[in-house]
Amino acid sequence: MLKLGFIRSSACRFSPSSINLSPYPSCFCFSPKQTISFAVRSQMGSFTTLSQSSSRLLFRQLFEKESSTYTYLLADSSHPDKPALLIDPVDKTVDRDLSLVRELGLKLIYAINTHVHADHITGTGLIKGKVPGVKSVISKASGSKADVFVEPGDKISFGDLFLEVRATPGHTVGCVTYVTGDGPDQPQPRMAFTGDALLIRGCGRTDFQGGSSEQLYKSVHSQIFTLPKETLLYPAHDYKGFTVTTVGEEMLYNPRLTKDEDTFRSIMQNLNLPYPKMIDVAVPANLVCGLQDLESKAN
Amino acid sequence: MLKLGFIRSSACRFSPSSINLSPYPSCFCFSPKQTISFAVRSQMGSFTTLSQSSSRLLFRQLFEKESSTYTYLLADSSHPDKPALLIDPVDKTVDRDLSLVRELGLKLIYAINTHVHADHITGTGLIKGKVPGVKSVISKASGSKADVFVEPGDKISFGDLFLEVRATPGHTVGCVTYVTGDGPDQPQPRMAFTGDALLIRGCGRTDFQGGSSEQLYKSVHSQIFTLPKETLLYPAHDYKGFTVTTVGEEMLYNPRLTKDEDTFRSIMQNLNLPYPKMIDVAVPANLVCGLQDLESKAN
Repeated sequence: MLKLGFIRSSACRFSPSSINLSPYPSCFCFSPKQTISFAVRSQMGSFTTLSQSSSRLLFRQLFEKESSTYTYLLADSSHPDKPALLIDPVDKTVDRDLSLVRELGLKLIYAINTHVHADHITGTGLIKGKVPGVKSVISKASGSKADVFVEPGDKISFGDLFLEVRATPGHTVGCVTYVTGDGPDQPQPRMAFTGDALLIRGCGRTDFQGGSSEQLYKSVHSQIFTLPKETLLYPAHDYKGFTVTTVGEEMLYNPRLTKDEDTFRSIMQNLNLPYPKMIDVAVPANLVCGLQDLESKAN
Repeated sequence: MLKLGFIRSSACRFSPSSINLSPYPSCFCFSPKQTISFAVRSQMGSFTTLSQSSSRLLFRQLFEKESSTYTYLLADSSHPDKPALLIDPVDKTVDRDLSLVRELGLKLIYAINTHVHADHITGTGLIKGKVPGVKSVISKASGSKADVFVEPGDKISFGDLFLEVRATPGHTVGCVTYVTGDGPDQPQPRMAFTGDALLIRGCGRTDFQGGSSEQLYKSVHSQIFTLPKETLLYPAHDYKGFTVTTVGEEMLYNPRLTKDEDTFRSIMQNLNLPYPKMIDVAVPANLVCGLQDLESKAN
């Protein structure tokens, strides 16, 4: 990792550390015809007073209909390079995502996954092929291939903004949640990209890929429900047409995770879900960040 | 309209006027276990300095997958009654929407349509059946049935927030765009709910229901592209997984509406789209705000 110019200040599980890629890859530096930034914020009226959100954050939520996957585009629009990252890109929508990145005048530096997906092929490999210089990022615990492996407590910097890495295993062993920074220039309220650990009024299944309902319960309660109640939660999927929720809302209304641990375990054990139709294709591909096809073609 | 307690200050086509329903219907007053507000804001970095968004606005974007329709929930979370409205609800997702309204502790007062939809049945009729007191709203020019008919320049108030009505015919004769208010306590940047007049990198078809490409071109350029460039645009549909755009972005990248009027007309004449599969069911139902089934059952 050091040869890629990354710095991890400590190997301690929850110590703050930072990842900085410098210089930004220059191959995807479109001339910004126009600078557009989009920040979201929210409050739980009864808990907090709304404070000024970061005006630096450009944010877009994107949807892939077949697998009901959300991809997220984040960028620091105030930084001269407008460095950007994509969370959970899907192979089928890579061209759409890169076209948007180009139109918004951004410089894509990271393609990040929350975990090894079983229901779709990540777009990371394709993106790396189309935009040389972009670094793929996934958790070390995932056991997957990537340019950058993150661990709990790491920070992924893009310009003057950053994402904090939190370990939220249970759906898979390597699941992480990426949370926007806690600081004066970071988005307020914070935004958490929960992958499949926490879905809106639901959660990811725990019956394959090293899943564990005990672990998932612990992850959500210790790593997500401890965030401020107004924190915006953006999942990797939604099957009912919801786009966002908050910590406070899920603590009140999540039909599974508001239950005690024994009830939760029993719910998860009795879901009787069918075998995921994409798993035998998606997991092997995603373990190499979606590069499977590219590599087999090259051989 | 007067008997419903609405006030229109002027019949002049573009004069500001206001619609206030008082008192709020009491039949959907859930006890707010928790107050949640969600405000969005955005900037075009090169055009404006980001200003404080209204902290009053609770906002949610909701998606109906089959017809790729967006429904929008807006509420004044700072008002003691938390009055709320739904824009373009779909019959199939009414229960989801009303459940969210209940969980967020809101009092639904309006179910609003941007136009008479041809691709899905509006949820307005079902909502009125489930939540007596909710008023259906549509433009007078639509020729549809509703409790409240709005005209250009009207204001639809919910608490201390309001939507301004702008006439944007062209997809249908009665299409309107609802724009959040222009004022110190209103959301900043403004948000425009464009229906099918302007879609993200596209626009609604103009070959049925009194459609006119000339009219649509004029509508978008005079009523939408004249809004501040950072205005967030929320369409009634998206088929590619985009969730939001801005005036500035569409003025640069809309592949149809950035063209001159003649080219636009030619593009629209040569789309060769199939006859909408739902039109013969949806339009008659939507002309009575989706009440067709309820009425036939009652007879």
